[in-house]
Amino acid sequence: MCRWLAYSGSPILLEELLYKPQFSLIDQSLHARLGVETTNGDGFGVGWYGVDDPTAPTLFRGVGPAWSDPNLRELAGSVPSPLFLAHIRASTGTPVQQTNCHPFRYGRWLWLHNGAIREFATVKRELVLAVDPGLYPAIAGSTDSEVMFHLALTFGLRDEPVEAVERMVAFVESAGRRHGVEHPLQMTVATTDGERLWAFRYSSEGNSRSLYYSTDVTTLRALYPENENLWRVSDETRIVVSEPLVELPGAWRPVPESSYGLIQEGADAMGVFRPGRR
Amino acid sequence: MCRWLAYSGSPILLEELLYKPQFSLIDQSLHARLGVETTNGDGFGVGWYGVDDPTAPTLFRGVGPAWSDPNLRELAGSVPSPLFLAHIRASTGTPVQQTNCHPFRYGRWLWLHNGAIREFATVKRELVLAVDPGLYPAIAGSTDSEVMFHLALTFGLRDEPVEAVERMVAFVESAGRRHGVEHPLQMTVATTDGERLWAFRYSSEGNSRSLYYSTDVTTLRALYPENENLWRVSDETRIVVSEPLVELPGAWRPVPESSYGLIQEGADAMGVFRPGRR
Amino acid sequence: MCRWLAYSGSPILLEELLYKPQFSLIDQSLHARLGVETTNGDGFGVGWYGVDDPTAPTLFRGVGPAWSDPNLRELAGSVPSPLFLAHIRASTGTPVQQTNCHPFRYGRWLWLHNGAIREFATVKRELVLAVDPGLYPAIAGSTDSEVMFHLALTFGLRDEPVEAVERMVAFVESAGRRHGVEHPLQMTVATTDGERLWAFRYSSEGNSRSLYYSTDVTTLRALYPENENLWRVSDETRIVVSEPLVELPGAWRPVPESSYGLIQEGADAMGVFRPGRR
Amino acid sequence: MCRWLAYSGSPILLEELLYKPQFSLIDQSLHARLGVETTNGDGFGVGWYGVDDPTAPTLFRGVGPAWSDPNLRELAGSVPSPLFLAHIRASTGTPVQQTNCHPFRYGRWLWLHNGAIREFATVKRELVLAVDPGLYPAIAGSTDSEVMFHLALTFGLRDEPVEAVERMVAFVESAGRRHGVEHPLQMTVATTDGERLWAFRYSSEGNSRSLYYSTDVTTLRALYPENENLWRVSDETRIVVSEPLVELPGAWRPVPESSYGLIQEGADAMGVFRPGRR
Repeated sequence: MCRWLAYSGSPILLEELLYKPQFSLIDQSLHARLGVETTNGDGFGVGWYGVDDPTAPTLFRGVGPAWSDPNLRELAGSVPSPLFLAHIRASTGTPVQQTNCHPFRYGRWLWLHNGAIREFATVKRELVLAVDPGLYPAIAGSTDSEVMFHLALTFGLRDEPVEAVERMVAFVESAGRRHGVEHPLQMTVATTDGERLWAFRYSSEGNSRSLYYSTDVTTLRALYPENENLWRVSDETRIVVSEPLVELPGAWRPVPESSYGLIQEGADAMGVFRPGRR
Repeated sequence: MCRWLAYSGSPILLEELLYKPQFSLIDQSLHARLGVETTNGDGFGVGWYGVDDPTAPTLFRGVGPAWSDPNLRELAGSVPSPLFLAHIRASTGTPVQQTNCHPFRYGRWLWLHNGAIREFATVKRELVLAVDPGLYPAIAGSTDSEVMFHLALTFGLRDEPVEAVERMVAFVESAGRRHGVEHPLQMTVATTDGERLWAFRYSSEGNSRSLYYSTDVTTLRALYPENENLWRVSDETRIVVSEPLVELPGAWRPVPESSYGLIQEGADAMGVFRPGRR
Repeated sequence: MCRWLAYSGSPILLEELLYKPQFSLIDQSLHARLGVETTNGDGFGVGWYGVDDPTAPTLFRGVGPAWSDPNLRELAGSVPSPLFLAHIRASTGTPVQQTNCHPFRYGRWLWLHNGAIREFATVKRELVLAVDPGLYPAIAGSTDSEVMFHLALTFGLRDEPVEAVERMVAFVESAGRRHGVEHPLQMTVATTDGERLWAFRYSSEGNSRSLYYSTDVTTLRALYPENENLWRVSDETRIVVSEPLVELPGAWRPVPESSYGLIQEGADAMGVFRPGRR
Repeated sequence: MCRWLAYSGSPILLEELLYKPQFSLIDQSLHARLGVETTNGDGFGVGWYGVDDPTAPTLFRGVGPAWSDPNLRELAGSVPSPLFLAHIRASTGTPVQQTNCHPFRYGRWLWLHNGAIREFATVKRELVLAVDPGLYPAIAGSTDSEVMFHLALTFGLRDEPVEAVERMVAFVESAGRRHGVEHPLQMTVATTDGERLWAFRYSSEGNSRSLYYSTDVTTLRALYPENENLWRVSDETRIVVSEPLVELPGAWRPVPESSYGLIQEGADAMGVFRPGRR
């Protein structure tokens, strides 16, 4: 499928997470350790918010493999950001083209996804029809992930993010089951409005792709006093990843099955993700 | 907009039309003389039938400009074909990606288009909904041209080509007008099943993009006895082009406004194109 | 050939010059008015210095046309810079690939070029042999422009920029003439170390490609008090361009034939460019 | 490094070897089993001779991964050839660009390589200087492999292929050793003039990358009478591969260390490869 990461905290250069860690996202593009596919070479993307502007994220997306893209290397070394999403793609069948690269953007919102809507070709028309006609022209590519985003927007993402994603999933599952698909959806998702960041882990079969988040920075600093990287970032800094970037005992905790996390100023939150509840 | 050509006749190398003429399609990619845009650098495509197989066309499409593509140059010099379509694109807004490059293919059929559905973002949803749900998953890109093709297929292209294209146009025009678009459609189109080739010239405003066809080869041979190229091809060979490939008096005739032409074994045909008739 | 611009002054978003002016560089990529070629679609590049760091320029270069590159559009709207070079390429024969896109970089230096070394294939070996063996491995592409850069570095660009470029040109001219080339070199060049910016206009035949620089900002402000853009930038801001970005009488002056200009903190300078002097 | 294959025999569609076998070259691009790198996603290339013309090979080379290239898939299904070379690249540092993709071509000759000249940046200048000045302008990219090809051409490839490759290797080894490189060269190479095909396996350390050739077709037919693929091709058909395309006991034999093979009409030949002999 794919690999991704989301960062929220003190502004850092993108390269701190994309290139420098032992199992950086770029390393994962060549040999992911926990993914269904070891190679994630079907395009990539980064979406970031400027240091002082949470309303207008910038996108940089490419169709080649991330590991050999000179422009990504250049930008990662010069762009600082307090909030960014990055994604490396392993296509599940849709074409390798920029409009199919994550993250997707709508206004100030970004969205990225690892997983798949199963038998997407079969259910796609029904799903697309349910997208708000006013949002429909904003669908630029052909992935299941982008349709999921626009369904979530249709179902209220901008007002009630968790509930909207639950409604989207419930809708996708009911559509899939009407077409005889046993386990219609597999997903880890990150989405943000530039201020708060939500991460979701869910699958119809209750056996979701891996997802981890970084633990409390102050605890980590006490455990690893010699690691200077941990001192430079604020206590509120958090990273969410498909798979750990370094092997550092205690540094990463799995997001539980059928759960979501919310990273924000002040106390973060975690909750049960229950598509059927409404 | 775009420029295109269609060839039917004795097998020739693609380069005979793509590169060798004075105003070849490649030359037109840099400086078209009759187009709305002088530069057609937003991708290109060629679809060709093998010498002995009218049922399985091959596509070669690229996202860069045709004029600098080394692979196109190589293939054009080595692939012979008795029937091929070639297209250079000037995007009217949709992304430059392979799935938006012409020709489009469905089974043994190819389709290409110059022009536009005006205010396509506004009417797209309504048009796409009218595509046969069984054909819907075959739409891979985001152009108006590909939607027109799938609407024509929905309306019977494989059985009654001219009538199906008329129905498609009538449908696009009625959808556009419901949304207040005065002149919903501008088009020259070529389509083929590998045996017969249809070319259409039409626009809602009755002022369509240029389209020419090559005149009778035997007449040309009498007029230009010194031109060896004319002797190598059969009497039935025909070329249809957005703009003439060479300045050769008498060699090209405009396809009349609101008309279609049919090139086939035996007598060719031309007729009035009347979207409202059925 | 190509088109380029160089900016030095108050930090501005790249888009202020790349996209917003009437005859912006992006507009020139589709229809240059003063160039040998109207289309400059064989790749592009931007090199910029960060707001606080004149020592580590970032490069973003692409092989498609600038006019359709979504990433360039995104970056231009989010990257501010006090000093940047931008280039759109019309190849004179060498392949369209990122390593042939301008600007070229060596350490803190950037270099870009419009023009050509005539009969480059004939003289290339002799020129490349003259490059300092320690610099030789840094040549990544196959253009005449990059070889000119490395010859200038070899001849002292980092210490005596004007003299080094004069030596480079004298060397290229003598090599060309040894091979019977009447007018070996045609060039406008910009180069910078992140603090000072040099622009050169020269050709062996004394008939060089166009090059303009923006006049004194305070004068312009008096002439055009209603133009708010002119008030936002400092008095020292300067732009050098292949062709004017807007039609604003008095705003642009041609760099004289066989001359160079130096833009720096404090008084700028202009001088005669005389390859044979040393 | 890279993976490659060479085919000589009855004309077949490229897809028969590129896509259809269990461990096809395309499969190897995602997960090679015997290579140094499991992923070979840094571009690809195919060079083929037409069914009736051994003098003018056609090249198709791309910079994306082979596994997701729609044009390669299309061509492989429609181009038949009696003699072709195919290569998937894992860069050892030089840029991912078409001019660095194998095979390389000079006149009727094709050349491809797996391996590396160690410390190539250090010895490159010395090697390039030894290339015949008349051949020098034909070097279009920046790889060690292309320099090896032009050195072999300089040393007589067209007249004495084996001896020329031996001289090239001896030269590369002496240059490397002058610069203190212990094991200067690692290579498997295939080269052809459109009629005969040579394959080489050699490394300075005597521990070369894997290379296999298909055994006698008549023997295989007797062993595997149910395998229809084996009946369609002539007795003279041979395949040389970096790693076996299928697991078929007895079907593949390793090319011995420090050896070369010659495939031609009539009896094939194998010999010792001895760079120091002349």
